[in-house]
Amino acid sequence: DKRLALVTGRAYPEQATETAHYLGTEVLPTTAYDFANGEMYVRYTEPIRGADVFIMQAHTQPINKWIMEQLIMIDAAKRASARSITVVAPFFGYSRQDKKHLGREPITAKLMFTLMRAAGADRVMTVDLHAAQEQGFFNGPVDHLTAMPILLDYMRDRLPLDNTTIVSPDAGRIKVSEQWAAKLGGLPLAFIHKTRDTTRPNHAEAHGIIGEVKDRDCVVIDDMIDTAGTICEAVRTLHDHGAKSVTLVATHGLLSGPAVERLKDSGVKEIVLTDTVPIPEEKRLPNMTVLSAAPLLAAGIRSVFESRSVSNLLNGLPE
Amino acid sequence: DKRLALVTGRAYPEQATETAHYLGTEVLPTTAYDFANGEMYVRYTEPIRGADVFIMQAHTQPINKWIMEQLIMIDAAKRASARSITVVAPFFGYSRQDKKHLGREPITAKLMFTLMRAAGADRVMTVDLHAAQEQGFFNGPVDHLTAMPILLDYMRDRLPLDNTTIVSPDAGRIKVSEQWAAKLGGLPLAFIHKTRDTTRPNHAEAHGIIGEVKDRDCVVIDDMIDTAGTICEAVRTLHDHGAKSVTLVATHGLLSGPAVERLKDSGVKEIVLTDTVPIPEEKRLPNMTVLSAAPLLAAGIRSVFESRSVSNLLNGLPE
Ligand SMILES: Nc1ncnc2c1ncn2[C@@H]1O[C@H](COP(=O)(O)O)[C@@H](O)[C@H]1O
Ligand SMILES: Nc1ncnc2c1ncn2[C@@H]1O[C@H](COP(=O)(O)O)[C@@H](O)[C@H]1O
Repeated sequence: DKRLALVTGRAYPEQATETAHYLGTEVLPTTAYDFANGEMYVRYTEPIRGADVFIMQAHTQPINKWIMEQLIMIDAAKRASARSITVVAPFFGYSRQDKKHLGREPITAKLMFTLMRAAGADRVMTVDLHAAQEQGFFNGPVDHLTAMPILLDYMRDRLPLDNTTIVSPDAGRIKVSEQWAAKLGGLPLAFIHKTRDTTRPNHAEAHGIIGEVKDRDCVVIDDMIDTAGTICEAVRTLHDHGAKSVTLVATHGLLSGPAVERLKDSGVKEIVLTDTVPIPEEKRLPNMTVLSAAPLLAAGIRSVFESRSVSNLLNGLPE
Repeated sequence: DKRLALVTGRAYPEQATETAHYLGTEVLPTTAYDFANGEMYVRYTEPIRGADVFIMQAHTQPINKWIMEQLIMIDAAKRASARSITVVAPFFGYSRQDKKHLGREPITAKLMFTLMRAAGADRVMTVDLHAAQEQGFFNGPVDHLTAMPILLDYMRDRLPLDNTTIVSPDAGRIKVSEQWAAKLGGLPLAFIHKTRDTTRPNHAEAHGIIGEVKDRDCVVIDDMIDTAGTICEAVRTLHDHGAKSVTLVATHGLLSGPAVERLKDSGVKEIVLTDTVPIPEEKRLPNMTVLSAAPLLAAGIRSVFESRSVSNLLNGLPE
């Protein structure tokens, strides 16, 4: 008979514990440590033979180390005769390097999927990939979950629906904003029109706004907040154009480098994130809400384990 | 016509520069940096289309990051239409995890070869693998070089050959010591008999000595000095048994954690290493000699590029 084994790397074990709770199970114990030269050792303390193994890891800093640990865990699971191996990477590292912009560049997102497959992964589960096309990078099934239901649920009751405008920070993300606008009963849309300075990573220049934002409560939807450079530029532009308030909503709160300082100074009303990567106490601003991704991950894992469809996780959310 | 392209990751670019010098060429420039969330970007600044690309990287700390960078460089080289891709990893990371000691362990050395292959590597060049069997872990040619000629050349003139004993710190390494003893004209051998405490990594207990060391100038040969725990135990045991002097010789000077302190206090006469990983100035003791691995790597690269045998690199060393 089938057996589910949930295991986790060391990047964010609390998330695995919480996910296990929603699944009514426990995280299987693992021995894991670093050797003196930085090489890592991992071992499953209990048998996983014949089990459907879900290997969770947060792709947070030090990101290359944690991805490598997940790869090592895949190898160990394969050699321990797991029946199936599913990589659970709530935020998928390197997903922004999904195409060549210049010659002689890597496509690192593709490489990461390739490495997971080569190590022995049968499936990959992840939340809100930077581009949905990346599902095609894995030679096997990808369970592409979305945190939109979680974020929507939270936002719905808090919005003055008669005065809200959904804002895309970027022409590339209009589709998601459209979905939000539709789900909230047909709200008006706006988007920031910008040109990106490709020679300076993590920098972008905001320019103008398409759509009406004056005296509106604006909700900016993005997939991630990394250094928050782009998004704080968007907030400034919205304020400059007379927005009444600006709320930021994103699935992945990477909050790297100057992000927290920038958000603090941005005049933003609220920041709503999920914990697809851990957000430590010291990065949590008073006006920041971090929603747990665990119910979503638990629902995804249950669907895969029970071979049910993951296509409508909105209804499948536990509790 | 054939073209050699030597490129390097950021772990130890000086070694690539020196290797290029021996090859009469230059390291091709690369753009490489870390994004704010720790993801890495790499790009070859000049064309490598049709070239035989050699991607050098030292597997030094932070080792997982530098291995990942090398994997990304392989991906970029493949997409840039390199004719062939050779990974040059003078010290091969994770090579000590080459078998399962317990159930549910990974075989991380095998995984690393698998990842390199999956990323697009055609060959792997490395020096003194922890176990020669690991060549079989790569699904393609492995150029397994040895630093023994470099180390032997240095030691030969410095030894009182009529009073030297070659010592293996470990029953597992007697074969290499035998080779040394033979190359130096049939010197006597000894080895330290020990039992390893498997529950404490980086710890080992020395016990006794098989062979004669009293009043002898002992040369201990190992593949690597990591935390130096085992080897300093060996030095102590040799002194306890009346050795006149103890010299340590190893290919890989990882010198992790307490290594330098331990070596300083060990009463050892000289430590002879190569720079298969960088050995920064602050780790260099007055009685430490670091020999360059670049001539060996250059000879190996030249042999591969010219499709000559690498089996006798002793004669093939440039200069
Ligand atoms: N980790 C990262 N941090 C910041 N920018 C990145 C990162 N990875 C890729 N990029 C850049 O982000 C852009 C991709 O975003 P997009 O154009 O929205 O798909 C490209 O210019 C990439 O070079
Ligand atoms: N990076 C490392 N640092 C210290 N010990 C390691 C490392 N990797 C593997 N080992 C251990 O070293 C032993 C392998 O060495 P050996 O028995 O000489 O082949 C095993 O007990 C491994 O668990």
